[in-house]
Amino acid sequence: MTRKELVELIYAKESFLCVGLDTDLKKIPQHLLREEDPIFAFNKAIIDATSQYCVAYKPNLAFYESNGVKGWIAFEKTIQYLNEKYPHHFIIADAKRGDIGNTSAMYARTFFEEMNLDALTVAPYMGEDSVTPFLQYEGKWVILLALTSNKGSNDFQLTTDANGERLFEKVLRKSQEWGNDENMMYVVGATQGKMFKDIRKIVPSHFLLVPGVGAQGGSLEEVCKYGMTEDCGLIVNSSRAIIYADNTENFATVAAQKAREVQLQMAEALAKKS
Amino acid sequence: MTRKELVELIYAKESFLCVGLDTDLKKIPQHLLREEDPIFAFNKAIIDATSQYCVAYKPNLAFYESNGVKGWIAFEKTIQYLNEKYPHHFIIADAKRGDIGNTSAMYARTFFEEMNLDALTVAPYMGEDSVTPFLQYEGKWVILLALTSNKGSNDFQLTTDANGERLFEKVLRKSQEWGNDENMMYVVGATQGKMFKDIRKIVPSHFLLVPGVGAQGGSLEEVCKYGMTEDCGLIVNSSRAIIYADNTENFATVAAQKAREVQLQMAEALAKKS
Repeated sequence: MTRKELVELIYAKESFLCVGLDTDLKKIPQHLLREEDPIFAFNKAIIDATSQYCVAYKPNLAFYESNGVKGWIAFEKTIQYLNEKYPHHFIIADAKRGDIGNTSAMYARTFFEEMNLDALTVAPYMGEDSVTPFLQYEGKWVILLALTSNKGSNDFQLTTDANGERLFEKVLRKSQEWGNDENMMYVVGATQGKMFKDIRKIVPSHFLLVPGVGAQGGSLEEVCKYGMTEDCGLIVNSSRAIIYADNTENFATVAAQKAREVQLQMAEALAKKS
Repeated sequence: MTRKELVELIYAKESFLCVGLDTDLKKIPQHLLREEDPIFAFNKAIIDATSQYCVAYKPNLAFYESNGVKGWIAFEKTIQYLNEKYPHHFIIADAKRGDIGNTSAMYARTFFEEMNLDALTVAPYMGEDSVTPFLQYEGKWVILLALTSNKGSNDFQLTTDANGERLFEKVLRKSQEWGNDENMMYVVGATQGKMFKDIRKIVPSHFLLVPGVGAQGGSLEEVCKYGMTEDCGLIVNSSRAIIYADNTENFATVAAQKAREVQLQMAEALAKKS
């Protein structure tokens, strides 16, 4: 999906919501465990219920890999279902990959060519040649970790170098030599609040993928206030607060309601900006 | 595997060689493509041929994931085969994972509990809570990326902070607050040559996992000279130079010869040190 298409999608749906498919067999409604593929059954119900309120889906690979081969089958079925039934949604694999060049190139082929995903989260620690293999695909995106939502983000990401630049700022600046705002986004946690202001000085036009609203405590209002650009520039992810809002047979309806609530706040934020 | 067991294994076999199972369908001998599971058939032959010369195996997950569900099946079969037939080898999943705490905990369960692997490579960018879930298992190891073998290692890992400390040095120092030399190792590329001297100042006793000897151009002699400790403290990985040394029906025999050559150099290095 190109940037232009993504922006059009956001304004057409008045939403920049991404639903995180962090599907955990321990947390899904227990009646689904009777299904042949409980993970896929849960995902399908969540996707069908929330699709009109969101523009993106983001399965986190860890949740699938933790179920071994069965998890991978469920992951591939989910992606196939999205590709077939919802081809206009933006699909992100939250994989946080990054390896030496030839290995990153293999990951890129898997996720972009074979699975036809739109975007992949990538860890920046290994530098340029671990990232650039993902940038060779028209309409595909790298979403580079910049300032994450967890407590451990303090350990290295905020380290200030001899020139007064923090590591996450260096990641933002340096990576612009490798890609641009048509093929690269950044992960910035919603819990980072006013840091969005500093981030927008370095990447005024790039899209940011923002996890951490909801269960992790980030504020959508604050994210919009400091992070939103003229053409939105934000994809805000919510996982647990939507997909696990209810764990009865009614779970999909409640998930839809929760997604609808977030979407209404987003419509308001978009209207306020324009 | 505990540190004591690992050291005993190294001295018993006079080897600190890790064979990297970076199994690529495009590179394996083409007659294997007639097998039901070519990846596993290749791995099994390589493992049986090289086991006496090495102490560790390291499949890189990217090579398996790039084949989707079939790749995961081959990966699981390989791990199962190693667990059953070679329980005294040290098994590393080269996964370069690292996510927010609850997600890292899922990865830890997958790789340590379900697959019974000995160690997992982890990327440090997300800090403490992305690493510590992997440290909760007796006899299991985190192998944290410190100074990698690729060109991109210059981009961020060598950044010097306001106190004159480089990022990889901070990773080495800071992570010692989370683990110790009984449950944590570090990835240091063989291509980094004399940097081993600086690294040993910060982690004098930790094991280092050293990729980049062979195809990537690192020198075993230099690694031993600057990186070896009193009880070895090194696991040196070689992938392509061993497993793809030959691509005829004779591939396993040639791989064994190559592994044997490296093992002999290692025996010499161990003898020289003691």
